[in-house]
Amino acid sequence: MKQVKVEIITIGDEILIGQIVDTNSAWMGAELSKAGFDVVQITSVHDEAMPIQSALKAALGRADVVLVTGGIGPTKDDVTKRTLCDFFHTRLVHSEAVLQNIQRLYTHRRDVLNDLTRAQAMVPESATIIQNTVGTAPITWFDCKGGQVVVSMPGVPYEMRQAMNAEVIPRLQKKFDAPALLHKTLLVTGYPESALALKMADWEAALPANLHVAYLPNYSIIRLRLTGTGDDMLALDFAMNQQIDQLKALLGTAVVCDEDITVAEWLGRLLKSRGLTLATAESCTGGNIAHLITQVPGSSEYFKGTVVSYANEVKTGVLGVRVGDLERDGAVSQPVVEQMAQGVRRLLRTDWAVATSGIMGPGGGTPDKPVGTVWMAVCSADRLISRPYHVNHHREQNIERASQLALLMLRELM
Amino acid sequence: MKQVKVEIITIGDEILIGQIVDTNSAWMGAELSKAGFDVVQITSVHDEAMPIQSALKAALGRADVVLVTGGIGPTKDDVTKRTLCDFFHTRLVHSEAVLQNIQRLYTHRRDVLNDLTRAQAMVPESATIIQNTVGTAPITWFDCKGGQVVVSMPGVPYEMRQAMNAEVIPRLQKKFDAPALLHKTLLVTGYPESALALKMADWEAALPANLHVAYLPNYSIIRLRLTGTGDDMLALDFAMNQQIDQLKALLGTAVVCDEDITVAEWLGRLLKSRGLTLATAESCTGGNIAHLITQVPGSSEYFKGTVVSYANEVKTGVLGVRVGDLERDGAVSQPVVEQMAQGVRRLLRTDWAVATSGIMGPGGGTPDKPVGTVWMAVCSADRLISRPYHVNHHREQNIERASQLALLMLRELM
Repeated sequence: MKQVKVEIITIGDEILIGQIVDTNSAWMGAELSKAGFDVVQITSVHDEAMPIQSALKAALGRADVVLVTGGIGPTKDDVTKRTLCDFFHTRLVHSEAVLQNIQRLYTHRRDVLNDLTRAQAMVPESATIIQNTVGTAPITWFDCKGGQVVVSMPGVPYEMRQAMNAEVIPRLQKKFDAPALLHKTLLVTGYPESALALKMADWEAALPANLHVAYLPNYSIIRLRLTGTGDDMLALDFAMNQQIDQLKALLGTAVVCDEDITVAEWLGRLLKSRGLTLATAESCTGGNIAHLITQVPGSSEYFKGTVVSYANEVKTGVLGVRVGDLERDGAVSQPVVEQMAQGVRRLLRTDWAVATSGIMGPGGGTPDKPVGTVWMAVCSADRLISRPYHVNHHREQNIERASQLALLMLRELM
Repeated sequence: MKQVKVEIITIGDEILIGQIVDTNSAWMGAELSKAGFDVVQITSVHDEAMPIQSALKAALGRADVVLVTGGIGPTKDDVTKRTLCDFFHTRLVHSEAVLQNIQRLYTHRRDVLNDLTRAQAMVPESATIIQNTVGTAPITWFDCKGGQVVVSMPGVPYEMRQAMNAEVIPRLQKKFDAPALLHKTLLVTGYPESALALKMADWEAALPANLHVAYLPNYSIIRLRLTGTGDDMLALDFAMNQQIDQLKALLGTAVVCDEDITVAEWLGRLLKSRGLTLATAESCTGGNIAHLITQVPGSSEYFKGTVVSYANEVKTGVLGVRVGDLERDGAVSQPVVEQMAQGVRRLLRTDWAVATSGIMGPGGGTPDKPVGTVWMAVCSADRLISRPYHVNHHREQNIERASQLALLMLRELM
């Protein structure tokens, strides 16, 4: 069976000049892959008719489905709608259904409708209109001769996501009968990429032709992604699970888990299944560990809270770090980070705690403790483990890497 | 003078299937724009020879410079290097200089060189090789007939950034004499996009042809970006500043600031210039406000810390919220959030404090307090302001939006 090829076109100067990061395409790629579609290209172009038209033409030369996001807001810099009309030789007509949807939204928001917003009820005549239940710009679906499909969606992330999940993906699945395409992921820690590849060389060489593996390093985690294609979903799933089992046996405790989830999600499931609670005491990570943990729905069941002790007097006054130790060894030291972990565990009355103290840069380094030095500690009622790490990039990466290392270090309390 | 057009090609299935977000291209787009280059397209393709070759060919049909990232790691899924050799009709040869660079890195990391990594010293014969000072994969620069340039760089973010800043952008500026291209940004709050556009309609209609404005809404902030092109940088800068001044007069206090920085950076500068300190007490935002604040270098000068009080006993036990109020009004209520703000301000001894308590979803809503309800409070020595907000999307967006609103609410203490 033929793979159904999908391309994504993202419209907006803000992506090209780097004012925003294109998270929409990543989300769409993930959802489309899960639904069995093969995303073959993502293209970002200017908010102008010419580049939009040529991107559309090129995409229709390669793909079965072209999904366009962005460029349909009410303001003047948005030209997608007019360009689509030209491309499909159609014109804008008034849609009473879209206007009613907009009026419903405005009534709900207790807001007054203006002319710019009212104009969003003008839609391409030849397109199928799909209502946007959470925003004013409708979704337009064009069926091309030859069976290809072009769909234009808003660029506002939650509007796009809502439209994709509720309408676009189900309709595409109905129209195209996609062959089996599966991805399976292992989260692995403790190996640099090339060392892991050597360790896995024999296993990889023996993979059947319809399976292949990719290495996705990200901070202290490598995501190993096994992708398989085939005609029968159940047979493919079985074959891939066999390979995954071999790989798990080969890599042992380096495997954190066999799902494509975040380390915070994995940790959350572990804590929940054991009925344990967690607290964090963060200096250099500045609340990011707590943020990663609380992004997970339901985290309030196992996460009690955090003390971000950026200032030394918070380390001593709130967390109970001994002033003498802090003065003698400095904030980035083993005794301080151990007392931070124990202090927050006592203060918030949790089973486990983790603490970080380090120098994230760009300033603050010394010859003894250069930028990137981080002390971390984890503790439970009867265990206390602490260790220095060295992360050495830019501030934002250092914070992210240190946060991931802290979450991984909690594995050692198991 | 002609704009110098740049295209970015990102290689890797992980972007297409949404396993990672393409932050590299956003960073490159921002740096290239600042350096006066016009980024006209960003394309992401599979790790396979055919799509890479056709993306390269298409890009060279439009742009002066094509920057390729990714696909040059040591593992088997990376085919970019071989594909570039085929595309430019050249072959791989051993580079002693690259090998020495790799050996230097490995000695520094106290790691042992393996064959996969050693193979990274094989480079395309016809390319100019630029050393990667922070990683093993070198940068390759191809000069095409007709003066176009193709540069291949690693996809690892800090390696790519280092190469771009130290080598690629300076060499491109030397080779191409780009005309003036400027972006100026205002951060505006308090308007929906269409209302802001109506307010600005006359100003926008009177803009000269070489200037245009774009609206970039993101949570509670709209970034207004004015872009201008011209032959003379000083004259363009002067003309754009005049327009920006008019716009500031028109929008008044809705303008947060006239730089393209984050709200946390803006707030940090304000606190620093006034010698004030800040603490946060976060329930529903789970440490994200602290994370946004501490991402800013130097934030330890004004930020003392945070108590994330996910559990009610942390609200009462650590922050001093009265048990009676919590039981009567619930955690998401005016008295609780006010006592959280005052409690953390007292505990961490700061000038200002901000507190949040809300229901971020997907679970936890009630008819009285549906998902998206957030109470926020800010306080100083002599002021206390509190207010309910409604954010109503998905969990991650709700956390982000509530965090931005909290940072903006601190403006009211000014």
